[in-house]
Amino acid sequence: MSAPRVAAPERGLGLGPEPGSSTQTSHRLLAYSDALLSIIATVMILPVAHTKIHPDQKLGESVQQLLLAKIAVYLMTFLIVTVAWAAHVRLFQVIEHIDDVLALLNLACMMIITFLPYTFSLMASFPGVPFGIFLFSVCAVVIGLIQAVIVAYGFYHPHLLNQQIQESENQDFYKRHILKIILRGPVLCFLAAIFSFFFIPLSYVLLGLVIVFPHLTRLITWCKTKVLGQRSEEEEHHSMETFSFYLSEPLSKERVEAFSDGVYAIVATLLILDICEDNVPDPREVEEKFHSSLLEALSEYGPNYLAYFGSFVTIGLLWFVHHSLFLYVTKATRLMGLLNILSLAFIGGLPLAYQLTSEFAEKSHNEIEAIQVSCVITFFASIFQFAIWTTALLNEEETLHAFARYGGKEHAFMFAKLALYPCVSLGAFFLTCLLSEFSTAIFHLMQIVIPFAFLALRIFVRISLTAMKSVMSLSRRKVVLLEEEEACLSPNETLS
Amino acid sequence: MSAPRVAAPERGLGLGPEPGSSTQTSHRLLAYSDALLSIIATVMILPVAHTKIHPDQKLGESVQQLLLAKIAVYLMTFLIVTVAWAAHVRLFQVIEHIDDVLALLNLACMMIITFLPYTFSLMASFPGVPFGIFLFSVCAVVIGLIQAVIVAYGFYHPHLLNQQIQESENQDFYKRHILKIILRGPVLCFLAAIFSFFFIPLSYVLLGLVIVFPHLTRLITWCKTKVLGQRSEEEEHHSMETFSFYLSEPLSKERVEAFSDGVYAIVATLLILDICEDNVPDPREVEEKFHSSLLEALSEYGPNYLAYFGSFVTIGLLWFVHHSLFLYVTKATRLMGLLNILSLAFIGGLPLAYQLTSEFAEKSHNEIEAIQVSCVITFFASIFQFAIWTTALLNEEETLHAFARYGGKEHAFMFAKLALYPCVSLGAFFLTCLLSEFSTAIFHLMQIVIPFAFLALRIFVRISLTAMKSVMSLSRRKVVLLEEEEACLSPNETLS
Repeated sequence: MSAPRVAAPERGLGLGPEPGSSTQTSHRLLAYSDALLSIIATVMILPVAHTKIHPDQKLGESVQQLLLAKIAVYLMTFLIVTVAWAAHVRLFQVIEHIDDVLALLNLACMMIITFLPYTFSLMASFPGVPFGIFLFSVCAVVIGLIQAVIVAYGFYHPHLLNQQIQESENQDFYKRHILKIILRGPVLCFLAAIFSFFFIPLSYVLLGLVIVFPHLTRLITWCKTKVLGQRSEEEEHHSMETFSFYLSEPLSKERVEAFSDGVYAIVATLLILDICEDNVPDPREVEEKFHSSLLEALSEYGPNYLAYFGSFVTIGLLWFVHHSLFLYVTKATRLMGLLNILSLAFIGGLPLAYQLTSEFAEKSHNEIEAIQVSCVITFFASIFQFAIWTTALLNEEETLHAFARYGGKEHAFMFAKLALYPCVSLGAFFLTCLLSEFSTAIFHLMQIVIPFAFLALRIFVRISLTAMKSVMSLSRRKVVLLEEEEACLSPNETLS
Repeated sequence: MSAPRVAAPERGLGLGPEPGSSTQTSHRLLAYSDALLSIIATVMILPVAHTKIHPDQKLGESVQQLLLAKIAVYLMTFLIVTVAWAAHVRLFQVIEHIDDVLALLNLACMMIITFLPYTFSLMASFPGVPFGIFLFSVCAVVIGLIQAVIVAYGFYHPHLLNQQIQESENQDFYKRHILKIILRGPVLCFLAAIFSFFFIPLSYVLLGLVIVFPHLTRLITWCKTKVLGQRSEEEEHHSMETFSFYLSEPLSKERVEAFSDGVYAIVATLLILDICEDNVPDPREVEEKFHSSLLEALSEYGPNYLAYFGSFVTIGLLWFVHHSLFLYVTKATRLMGLLNILSLAFIGGLPLAYQLTSEFAEKSHNEIEAIQVSCVITFFASIFQFAIWTTALLNEEETLHAFARYGGKEHAFMFAKLALYPCVSLGAFFLTCLLSEFSTAIFHLMQIVIPFAFLALRIFVRISLTAMKSVMSLSRRKVVLLEEEEACLSPNETLS
């Protein structure tokens, strides 16, 4: 509204070169948005984790009846927020500089996004009432409209745009393309809002479409290329020319890391929130029940502390694995981004696992199920991390640092790091099935042993590598000896 | 433990140059630690905000009796966590590169820090029982010990250290100095733990000392320099030589921003947590009380939504002001860091303000107090931001970008931005005193008007600047005219 037009801004300084200019780099705005979006995506596990399950009920039944629906909605909303995040990443790859008006518009957008968890709570509590899904859709449409205004503002003040687009001749083409990416979701949500009053399942299907749409179109293009071959190659060449900017950096690695860090940090903190809210004894109760002995009252919560520290260790170490992996990732492709988001969705489920292991640790008939749910969540969170790594290996020239490629110096160590959690959680799962009486002991032992395993992993890998090498050299020696023997024999044969 | 010794690592790549090296840049580890620490510092407002106040009670009394003690402990703990954060910043200014062992040690340190809010909750619930403060102190001591191990490990593997220290001859001196900074707090906490069993008030005094100690020593040094003059100047010259590394960059600006972003993000999200937990109606209640009409049930929560959006706008705009300010800050001095932390402590109090305005908005006799508390919290949060700016101006050559200095092109605009919230919140406070009947209307009007005020601020500033200039030029003209008249007169006089 009030921002004066200025020339292309000076890079590096964070400020426009002209006196009185209000142009700024968008770095900190994006970091703040990433923090907000990651927290909002993850906070949605709370209505699931805080579902009251009666202690007398069997957890098996409750899981099936009560939790599954809520978990499905949590996963869907997590994925929708990440779709909004991906659109946000695209948007601010086009608009590289901001001014006060854009900063305020972005804050307005964030305000509506932080309201999404509430609409999600309504959906989860009243799955049959259209109002929840209607409110959700309206919010999504408003977010889309604000982002469209941001695009319009950005293209009206071209000095805010990405250098490449600024210099390009067909700016309108870019504008239409980015608007298409941004408004795709809101249009589907708009349809969902209309249908919510007639036929709710269709609305849910439409919301599901919002999530899979980007990947669906990509898959269709990929299939077309495979089937039609030559002709589509030309097409792709054409699109390569105009969209080289998008293809060169599918998702900014920095923002993928920032978003992941936010999720890991908030999940670790949701645990302490639960501890602070639930496990501080009531002063009156302490006086009456425990004869004013606080220590005695706290000893009742013993298993909760153990479960808390165990969960924190799990989250911390999964972050550590993620950190180690992305240290060697040089570019995050779209598929790697998707796998990362799936991994994060399961990480977000860990507070639920904590709630289960702390609440049901003592009740014998729910114990095994609780521990098995924890193992399953941990397994999926870690196996998707492993999948990021294998996907990166498929295209290792572009996506991985030389050390981590096949045959690189860190390859074996990275493999061991990423394989540790899937193996251990799978092992614990089957052990609890076999030795159901010792399930709690097995689970806690696993949580205590793993950090030390990580500390000693490098030594293990080195020992096993040298062992493998010596075995291989031994076998090669044998082969050589055999060959020599054969060679010794064959002259004899030829002689005889 | 298992990390092999490698040569000085290559910069920029994030990886050591030698094959098999495990040295990494610490950037992402620090970002994650900042996120965890800022969330933990702020989460401690929850036991305060969730204090149940009976609706029939007068808020004035309850504030005095119940809240004040808890708020005091919240502020103290917030400040102690920020002290731990400052020590962490110092520590990782010395150790610039990490390996797996350091990453795992740092995670262990974070785990203990995330447990601090629970000990705080115990302290707040049982102020007279020594166990809470004992547990808090033990945690602080353990944190100090882990950090000491990190220092020892870092100096045992010198390639992990800051380049300047790596090349320095008296590494032992640096080691002792950083150990002193890190262990100062834990030693005081250790004493507090011992005294907690004999005389609890002394423990609280000792914990208070932990917070003020760094600033106290600084103040004493400063006073000494002023009083003794010459002799201490020599001393300072000596210390300048050895500590030039510390004096050149008191607190990394990047980490101050990251920590602040974390606090703003989590405070904005605590609000939606409250909304999601408290304002989703019970399905049964809806059926019985509202004849299955969800919309009717939700309309009961109308004021809560208004309060939520109002609070989010306040936090968002305070972040916006902070962002604008730090865009022009080139270096954060220690005093600016302290003022920033005080500002953040009040920002952390905003969920309390939300709780008050949403819970008591309808009850007439608590309404005014609730709104006044909100105004006071907003006022202090924003006035400390203003204080950062004035402090920066005192030493503008070093701390501010040329645009924001006195006489710079952005100076007036920055002043207007920073002065808006203190003025408005102070104005709203006094208006509610005078027009107590319209207090709610005034408060909500204020929250709606401010974003538009920010959008139009640049125009206002320009208009007022041109108005001032024209007034000044007018008055100058008058002076000139008067002088001319005098000049006209004086020749006459000399003539006559």
